[in-house]
Amino acid sequence: MPQYTPPLRDMQFVLHEMLQVADVFQAMPRHADVDVDTINAVLEEAGKFAAQVVAPLNPVGDREGCKLDKETHEVRTPSGFKAAYQQFVEGGWGALSCDPEHGGQGLPIVLNQCLYEMLNSASQAWTMYPGLSHGAYECLHAHGTEEQKALYLPKLTSGEWSGTMCLTEPHCGTDLGLLRTKAEPQPDGSYRLTGQKIFISAGEHDLAENIVHLVLARLPDAPPGSKGISLFVVPKFLPQADSSLGARNGIFCSALEHKMGIHGNATCQIVLEGAHATLVGEPNQGLQAMFVMMNAARLGVGMQSLGLTEVAYQNAVAYAKDRLQMRALSGPKAPDKPADPIIVHPDVRRMLLTARAYAEGGRALAMYSALLLDQAHASEDEDERNEAAELLALLTPIVKAFLTDNGWIATSECLGVFGGHGYIAEWGMEQFVRDARINMIYEGTNTIQALDLLGRKVLGDNGARLKLFGAKVREFVEEEGVNEAMQEFVNPLADLGDKVTKLTTELGFKAFQNRDEVGAAAVDYLRVCGHLVFAYLFAKQARIALDKQEQDAFYRAKLATIRFYFAKLLPETAMLIRRARSGAQPLMAMDEALF
Amino acid sequence: MPQYTPPLRDMQFVLHEMLQVADVFQAMPRHADVDVDTINAVLEEAGKFAAQVVAPLNPVGDREGCKLDKETHEVRTPSGFKAAYQQFVEGGWGALSCDPEHGGQGLPIVLNQCLYEMLNSASQAWTMYPGLSHGAYECLHAHGTEEQKALYLPKLTSGEWSGTMCLTEPHCGTDLGLLRTKAEPQPDGSYRLTGQKIFISAGEHDLAENIVHLVLARLPDAPPGSKGISLFVVPKFLPQADSSLGARNGIFCSALEHKMGIHGNATCQIVLEGAHATLVGEPNQGLQAMFVMMNAARLGVGMQSLGLTEVAYQNAVAYAKDRLQMRALSGPKAPDKPADPIIVHPDVRRMLLTARAYAEGGRALAMYSALLLDQAHASEDEDERNEAAELLALLTPIVKAFLTDNGWIATSECLGVFGGHGYIAEWGMEQFVRDARINMIYEGTNTIQALDLLGRKVLGDNGARLKLFGAKVREFVEEEGVNEAMQEFVNPLADLGDKVTKLTTELGFKAFQNRDEVGAAAVDYLRVCGHLVFAYLFAKQARIALDKQEQDAFYRAKLATIRFYFAKLLPETAMLIRRARSGAQPLMAMDEALF
Repeated sequence: MPQYTPPLRDMQFVLHEMLQVADVFQAMPRHADVDVDTINAVLEEAGKFAAQVVAPLNPVGDREGCKLDKETHEVRTPSGFKAAYQQFVEGGWGALSCDPEHGGQGLPIVLNQCLYEMLNSASQAWTMYPGLSHGAYECLHAHGTEEQKALYLPKLTSGEWSGTMCLTEPHCGTDLGLLRTKAEPQPDGSYRLTGQKIFISAGEHDLAENIVHLVLARLPDAPPGSKGISLFVVPKFLPQADSSLGARNGIFCSALEHKMGIHGNATCQIVLEGAHATLVGEPNQGLQAMFVMMNAARLGVGMQSLGLTEVAYQNAVAYAKDRLQMRALSGPKAPDKPADPIIVHPDVRRMLLTARAYAEGGRALAMYSALLLDQAHASEDEDERNEAAELLALLTPIVKAFLTDNGWIATSECLGVFGGHGYIAEWGMEQFVRDARINMIYEGTNTIQALDLLGRKVLGDNGARLKLFGAKVREFVEEEGVNEAMQEFVNPLADLGDKVTKLTTELGFKAFQNRDEVGAAAVDYLRVCGHLVFAYLFAKQARIALDKQEQDAFYRAKLATIRFYFAKLLPETAMLIRRARSGAQPLMAMDEALF
Repeated sequence: MPQYTPPLRDMQFVLHEMLQVADVFQAMPRHADVDVDTINAVLEEAGKFAAQVVAPLNPVGDREGCKLDKETHEVRTPSGFKAAYQQFVEGGWGALSCDPEHGGQGLPIVLNQCLYEMLNSASQAWTMYPGLSHGAYECLHAHGTEEQKALYLPKLTSGEWSGTMCLTEPHCGTDLGLLRTKAEPQPDGSYRLTGQKIFISAGEHDLAENIVHLVLARLPDAPPGSKGISLFVVPKFLPQADSSLGARNGIFCSALEHKMGIHGNATCQIVLEGAHATLVGEPNQGLQAMFVMMNAARLGVGMQSLGLTEVAYQNAVAYAKDRLQMRALSGPKAPDKPADPIIVHPDVRRMLLTARAYAEGGRALAMYSALLLDQAHASEDEDERNEAAELLALLTPIVKAFLTDNGWIATSECLGVFGGHGYIAEWGMEQFVRDARINMIYEGTNTIQALDLLGRKVLGDNGARLKLFGAKVREFVEEEGVNEAMQEFVNPLADLGDKVTKLTTELGFKAFQNRDEVGAAAVDYLRVCGHLVFAYLFAKQARIALDKQEQDAFYRAKLATIRFYFAKLLPETAMLIRRARSGAQPLMAMDEALF
């Protein structure tokens, strides 16, 4: 069975040394008392919960999967899932960064993200149950009426009730404008919903006493397309004013999907049969309201792959130190043993360091983004709030797509470290790969993320957000321009920054003539931007590690990882930029009939 | 359920137009009567068998898997596997390229490879049963005594008996020098084998009446390491002189592995309990004898991923033409429908064309290699035989590793075309991805292939084999140097050829000082060479297609695919060369303890 040790040291490095979060929190009235010790204590307890309570469930969930009782429409989750969820609720983990007004602990979001990285390393399938609740919480917190908030938020905060997002239908996923679920207004101001939804994660289960579905549907007089979609809250059991459970609502799980991975999470087909619902936000403004939830969820999907990357790395390292096979090409390293441990082989190290660099770079980016979210919510300074929100809008598709593509690469490389044993279920490595694949798809495929980045976030505002980030890169490059020891990091960073600027301008011109140029370049462009952000954050980390490398082996390992990144992973940009510049013609030339 | 149409048109293009195999066969007495019509008739019948008989079994095999009866040590294969195998034997498909002396049809190997591409598209898990028999056939054909040949080859040729390769043990896979299975000589000249083997594909099953295991083991007086390994043949039932079955031998399946994919194939733990065996070849020369089988198997693994790439592509195209979602960025393409088919989107085309280019390039390389094998076996000219063998030695690790890495990329991209539906088992796409992963591992991991290429095949003979291939590239470049229409293909080919020469020289110098430089660069180097070979073969194909593009849409599609390859896939070499040149230091700098 895979092992997991929470990476507390690297989290602390990112939070305290790179981001200096305690100083940032001091300037926020809401978080002024969140100091280093509080943060470390929370991380330590969260790590224990993830490693001791959740991690042992991951192979069980994969093996057993979920079971639907077709008579009762109830879903049984794998052995142990319910007990662990109970402990999660009792420990108050669901309430960590929720609003104290509704029973939350009011801690910064960046801490919640650390919790979720660790939970996802332990078990992505289990973690999706509380994770989706948190999305429903955020959506109702932002757009719910006072009555809806009073009715749902305390229970979603505690985790006694869980939440879902019901968007996809059989004929539409990416293109929600096509959706057909109908909402009929009732005389009492409520609605009746009828239709079918698919791919509803955690759509039915036995962990919580009630499930709060947030459902997109169409009002009778709604305009066609995406401008005619409204958002509703549809509880499994209708709550009474005192929060006790009333009648069973007409929303049912009709089938479970058989999937490549995340077997422990119930992916449900949901039918709505005149289900009682109340409107969230304004009529026909459902997509905008849902986007609050979706942006949070996109960061959350990034955390899923970060968690998988970290745990796959840890297990591959343990195997590579233990497994004896062949001698090092440069001569025996363990002459007393029948062969050398495979970690002596350069290509095994390439696989390991790929995962390590993607984990450490991903953690830096995810926590940087989460801190921006804290600043956007809780800073006293309006300019700071706005700048943080703009930067976060730019980074969100990168967190989602870059971290999940990297997670796919990293988990597969870590499987490879095990040779044939990696392909065997009992080692657990192949589960990480299977689980990782969905993260590139849901909450907007990575192609959609790339179109969001290049089309909307970059070209859509004439590069203003990108310039905001570019200014940070330039500032850092200028600061370190005279520091000899930093040249190995600052030079490629500055070079890549210039190339991104040039590429963006080129793509802007081409897109002006042919919008297909955006679609042709977007995926490569997003990965180039991902590397720019990683190079920037790694260069900042290197600055700190260079000063402290004599003190502590942690900093020497950090520098070795960063040097590996610049030597072996950053060169991907040479390919990506060429591909992005080669344009739409090689993609569009073939007649559809000839495929 | 996935669909499959044999790609006969492209096979015929490769065989008849690019390779002109019928002309090549005319010069070989053994194959002089194999003309275009014969080839096409065989391909057509083979395609029917694969598509109609085997393909429907693939999802069944994945769902049901194999079952071991622990009492009898017998394995039950999935429903339908046995009946299809019976049809395979009755159709004489196993005998296609076997020696007529032992009941074979004596057709060229390149035709057998076409058969196997199609069988693997239909079901890799099923195809491994006859595929491994063919490896055992080749090994005994090359190294068996006359008695062994008489006893085993006719039954292996017909497929009434099947074969295995028993190499791996729990503590050794790549490093066979560590193996422990013991062979004790008996007074009658036979041996008794005792030990444990793992990962034995098709190691036990109910398809054939007998199973012929080829087993590596160690004689009592054997020197340690890889120089003390001998090869034995160990039948499940001891055959009588009249080929009837005698006593059950002491070789048993003790457990089946639970794997990421290829569920329909039984991956067995095998115990040998004083099993009766006869020696194949010379004592302590077992690895060399096994390598005959392994080289054939490596080409065979390439065919597995080629088959998966092709079938994944076909299904992704069908979905992309059918699924309506969003409008083209450049304006509606199907205004009469609620949305455009997703094949209008540039990034969907990127995914499709990636798989298509990898399938067509892989087919060209695999058939080119198979024809070299025919030439090495059957040419009358000794120089031609030798040159073909040298080129094939160079290309074998490329076929194995480049095609299987590409298959992993391509099947995952094709899954991506389906969005969330790609992750659901019923569409069959996720099975292709899971099946594809093993191909990068078995028969020598792709890292081992890369070390074989760079360390042994290229640097090991001071680049002589590489120069042989380089001369072919240069000859083509010179021939086409004045052809204006060919410049778009010839220029990048010539450029890449120069870069490979330069990179090889550099790596040779570095390896001279530090052997770890070979291990650090090998994997990137192999992919660069893979692209060089693809660029060469695609340029040759473009030469033909340019002349015929007005006649037939097939050639226009071919050119569009080749142009996509040069624009979007070949640029990977820019990354690979940088990484290869960045050397061993970034990999070796981190202390083992710091991982």
